[in-house]
Amino acid sequence: MIVVMKPNATPEQIQHVINLVREYGLKDHPIVGTDRTVIACIGDKRAVDKGAIENAPMVEKIVPILAPYKMASREVRQERTEIAIGPAGATLGGQKIGVIAGPCAVESREQLLQTARAVAEAGAIALRGGAWKPRTSPYDFQGLQAKGLEILAEARAETHLAIVTEVLRSETVQQVAAVADVLQIGARNMQHYPLLEAVGKVDKPVILKRGPSSTMEEFLLAAEYIINAGNPNVILCERGIRTFEDYVRNTLPLAIVPALRERTHLPVVVDPSHGTGHAHMVPPMCLAAVAAGADGLLVEVHRDPEHAYTDAAQQINHHAFCAMMKRARKVAEAIGRDM
Amino acid sequence: MIVVMKPNATPEQIQHVINLVREYGLKDHPIVGTDRTVIACIGDKRAVDKGAIENAPMVEKIVPILAPYKMASREVRQERTEIAIGPAGATLGGQKIGVIAGPCAVESREQLLQTARAVAEAGAIALRGGAWKPRTSPYDFQGLQAKGLEILAEARAETHLAIVTEVLRSETVQQVAAVADVLQIGARNMQHYPLLEAVGKVDKPVILKRGPSSTMEEFLLAAEYIINAGNPNVILCERGIRTFEDYVRNTLPLAIVPALRERTHLPVVVDPSHGTGHAHMVPPMCLAAVAAGADGLLVEVHRDPEHAYTDAAQQINHHAFCAMMKRARKVAEAIGRDM
Amino acid sequence: MIVVMKPNATPEQIQHVINLVREYGLKDHPIVGTDRTVIACIGDKRAVDKGAIENAPMVEKIVPILAPYKMASREVRQERTEIAIGPAGATLGGQKIGVIAGPCAVESREQLLQTARAVAEAGAIALRGGAWKPRTSPYDFQGLQAKGLEILAEARAETHLAIVTEVLRSETVQQVAAVADVLQIGARNMQHYPLLEAVGKVDKPVILKRGPSSTMEEFLLAAEYIINAGNPNVILCERGIRTFEDYVRNTLPLAIVPALRERTHLPVVVDPSHGTGHAHMVPPMCLAAVAAGADGLLVEVHRDPEHAYTDAAQQINHHAFCAMMKRARKVAEAIGRDM
Amino acid sequence: MIVVMKPNATPEQIQHVINLVREYGLKDHPIVGTDRTVIACIGDKRAVDKGAIENAPMVEKIVPILAPYKMASREVRQERTEIAIGPAGATLGGQKIGVIAGPCAVESREQLLQTARAVAEAGAIALRGGAWKPRTSPYDFQGLQAKGLEILAEARAETHLAIVTEVLRSETVQQVAAVADVLQIGARNMQHYPLLEAVGKVDKPVILKRGPSSTMEEFLLAAEYIINAGNPNVILCERGIRTFEDYVRNTLPLAIVPALRERTHLPVVVDPSHGTGHAHMVPPMCLAAVAAGADGLLVEVHRDPEHAYTDAAQQINHHAFCAMMKRARKVAEAIGRDM
Repeated sequence: MIVVMKPNATPEQIQHVINLVREYGLKDHPIVGTDRTVIACIGDKRAVDKGAIENAPMVEKIVPILAPYKMASREVRQERTEIAIGPAGATLGGQKIGVIAGPCAVESREQLLQTARAVAEAGAIALRGGAWKPRTSPYDFQGLQAKGLEILAEARAETHLAIVTEVLRSETVQQVAAVADVLQIGARNMQHYPLLEAVGKVDKPVILKRGPSSTMEEFLLAAEYIINAGNPNVILCERGIRTFEDYVRNTLPLAIVPALRERTHLPVVVDPSHGTGHAHMVPPMCLAAVAAGADGLLVEVHRDPEHAYTDAAQQINHHAFCAMMKRARKVAEAIGRDM
Repeated sequence: MIVVMKPNATPEQIQHVINLVREYGLKDHPIVGTDRTVIACIGDKRAVDKGAIENAPMVEKIVPILAPYKMASREVRQERTEIAIGPAGATLGGQKIGVIAGPCAVESREQLLQTARAVAEAGAIALRGGAWKPRTSPYDFQGLQAKGLEILAEARAETHLAIVTEVLRSETVQQVAAVADVLQIGARNMQHYPLLEAVGKVDKPVILKRGPSSTMEEFLLAAEYIINAGNPNVILCERGIRTFEDYVRNTLPLAIVPALRERTHLPVVVDPSHGTGHAHMVPPMCLAAVAAGADGLLVEVHRDPEHAYTDAAQQINHHAFCAMMKRARKVAEAIGRDM
Repeated sequence: MIVVMKPNATPEQIQHVINLVREYGLKDHPIVGTDRTVIACIGDKRAVDKGAIENAPMVEKIVPILAPYKMASREVRQERTEIAIGPAGATLGGQKIGVIAGPCAVESREQLLQTARAVAEAGAIALRGGAWKPRTSPYDFQGLQAKGLEILAEARAETHLAIVTEVLRSETVQQVAAVADVLQIGARNMQHYPLLEAVGKVDKPVILKRGPSSTMEEFLLAAEYIINAGNPNVILCERGIRTFEDYVRNTLPLAIVPALRERTHLPVVVDPSHGTGHAHMVPPMCLAAVAAGADGLLVEVHRDPEHAYTDAAQQINHHAFCAMMKRARKVAEAIGRDM
Repeated sequence: MIVVMKPNATPEQIQHVINLVREYGLKDHPIVGTDRTVIACIGDKRAVDKGAIENAPMVEKIVPILAPYKMASREVRQERTEIAIGPAGATLGGQKIGVIAGPCAVESREQLLQTARAVAEAGAIALRGGAWKPRTSPYDFQGLQAKGLEILAEARAETHLAIVTEVLRSETVQQVAAVADVLQIGARNMQHYPLLEAVGKVDKPVILKRGPSSTMEEFLLAAEYIINAGNPNVILCERGIRTFEDYVRNTLPLAIVPALRERTHLPVVVDPSHGTGHAHMVPPMCLAAVAAGADGLLVEVHRDPEHAYTDAAQQINHHAFCAMMKRARKVAEAIGRDM
């Protein structure tokens, strides 16, 4: 890390900061420039609260150099992590792009099975569907819960799709992990650390959704929590961020795909359903995500979106999903990948 | 709610939407304008997923009219809610502005007691201090935990300050509530619904911090979760939002104070420590929050910020806190309130 | 537009608003709902300042229904506008995707000609290059100005590429239009109305870049200014918006491509150079933009980015541009378009 | 500036960067840390495009140390700049807080004079009023233009208020400067450099409004343009930024007041009218701005906001303005200033 002093810092003030730096166990390396003095600190420890030094007199700012995550970074692991997903041998993070599709919520046995069959036939590798739903309003439909898990298991038995479903609280991690092939941490829980630690102790892969106002660094630190607790199989999912834009539910920042691939070895998938919030934008953004280099897609598909219980505006129907898959496969080939 | 049809919608398409509206139990009221038809829907139910209708052909958009929160709104309760805080008869939400102050984290007995005495003498009504700390990195200091609670209780016994401390997970709500006078829900957990429901079942007031990318509506819906679970004593806390600004840790949007006072009867406090992230901006923003009409302040104060374990850049020292309190009292008088 | 009254509005207060609505030349249509009264206003005129009514007592909010732009909208023109670009018969807005490429700034004759030849060979339809540069700092390189125009003309003579260059002020519109095939309005000037009106009086196509904090509606209203002044040939360019993200110069919100195609008949191009700010993200985001349905790309290409005078971090070299073009052509085919 | 190399950079790659640094006329100072090498560059020139070095192989990032503005900074001038405003000896930037008030637009002689008298009596030092109006839509009222200037001059003659009015284009700078006491550069034009240079050549003070997505650095660089062109009398005006918040027209980030006071010697005023967009929030945010340390306020006041031509929702009436002024004066006293 670099400590930048204000222009008129006295030698005593500079020495005071150097003493602080040493107190923190770092080696100081002062550089006297034309306009001001900066102090490079070697041995930059990830756990030091750099802010403390900012309080010293005449410190202008602290500039961190080292990323605070470690095990999620490519510094620690150069080769990409390929994660096995479910019963049929599919993976995420390899040459082949994988699609996870299904309704926002499990609403009924018939509803889920119909969509499971449709997405399996179109080439999805996994079925998504919420059994417990985190809802912004306490008056909204909260999911079929344990019954929803049973229906998901039945859909897997029939279609051999892997099951991806959200876990909302640490108390139900075991219950959900007993059925699900992949646990999903929702965007609202990206920084709910007790839950991150709980899924870190399970031997199922985890899809971690980026919080709508998380920086890339916070996103990777949340993954680090899971890996640090013992589970290396983390799949990062971009699902849109909150900005001033009002024609979308969220702004989908696809440049995070190449940015993450540069910094981490973990697979990256994109959720254009939450990432746009409107069904007509979902297929083009699926194609764009594939073209940008995503390892997979997470897409909300409903047999009858006009009557969906939740997130209805952003679910696409079976027909639109099939059409998208055909095009996405060609885009994957265009960039030298399979799907 | 209002359904806006696209300009060239046919009578059949309009009728299809009217049928959907009726299916949802609403009364339709179509209005044929010069450019397009809109369908006003009466009996606008809070639990209907309005998005579903957006999927019907030739619907341009759905415009909600009714706010989705109820018990938090001034429609249900006109008079302001005044909430008793702790052992010494202080309140938040009345004529008197209350200040909650203390270190980010409980670091040691001596550290907490020194600051408790200092803020009590300067006129604070409550002591804040984290026993469990939610940290962005798994490698950072995570708090003294149960030991921290004991130290907080000791500080109350000596100073008669109310104790405000954060609860991180539903499993520890009872443990924390046994000591704390006010439970704090952190910004990262504003939409962690299991925790909101857990603190909704406790008879201690709750300070609910706004998530850094939450809309005002989402903020009030989170309060609604707590009230709906049985606890009407919710104190709303603005602590800054995430924007493109880079000279602050968060952007502190003080206009939410008058905006909330217009919409809700709940008390509103402001946290300029997280709301700016830099100690030198904290005192002026404390004064600004009081001038804007806040019912209280939440301020991080440390005896030696250069050596604080957490959030060091934003903690002010005892001296700065005392000086701020003197000025804040005068600002309160200037706008006709006490402090 | 819809006027929403507060819950306890009296009949007199409602009548006062109805009178105001009539005063503004609109027909009122009050609807008494279960919770509140709304007043639908028919004949919604685009020029009325709806805000005025918000000041009337007990008005909660005004909800506009009609988009404020007209000539840019698909309501007025259903078929897509295809715009001829330059001397060689290329177009933007049709079946064929067009690429505009070249250095950020014209730095020298040799520099521009080398890059012009390289991008022409790789299949670009137009050459970009700034003669006047708007720079954030007054101490930065401001461009070769008139000399830069001459060099651009020479490059066209040799390569037959169309010339795209920015015009910074209304006084130089004629001078630039005498050479350029397409005038570019930069993001900083998207709402500089005197300049929009000036390019609206010229018979050259205009590329209008979206301002970094402009809503889609403001973007289309800026296009409306140009069309309204007499020039229907406006090409919309998304170049990234300002958000909290710090791993990019701007966040590139590609969902605006399908969103704009739904609302306007004008061609839409994407600039992944400004849209990311880092060379390594430019090629994948070019492919993503094509997959999302863009009509064209605007890409900064430099023969030696390490020595570029301006925007150096985001310029790609000739080799990277060629490689991207080959892949982009395949992505275009994958979605049924040519390039 | 600091160049951070990636972890596995070879000695040759590091030497290549050192050579580039020297080529740019800087002195290199490499520091070999535990995880990576960084190269501190001394003689950090403000005009070098640091981005160029980012393109060199294995460079991770460039960290600027020096602020790119100079004459606007407190490094160059420690004492605060106090700027004389208009005919009656008022100033901005000194001990006394000054209020500029008046309608958004000059609509008629009678309208302006009534408001001029009202704000003068309440203690304003200057009258604002737009003669030319930059409007988001080409169909909106564009101002009385030259006639508006005449009316403003008449109001000054009667009330002795200084006249503050916006200049929209470089061609009319002389015409406006012949009447106005202070020229206003609107937020949309904050980076319209030809206009900044034009007002930099005039001997009237300039109020420069921050663009809605400008960083503090860009804001100060825009001021630098004006100072660099010859006019040192720049008054900075915060008027709100664009964020995801939807209960306000803009988010008003008052922490910029102490942040600017730390970095620049120029006076800082706040515009809570544009900064909130809703009349009922304007008075509390005026008080908050004063408490935060602003040197002045810019407030839209209209005799009859229900019938205002422009920005109607955010204009307050004469009565609300008087009441605010009385309270603001007390808040000013509370923090040790006059008004």
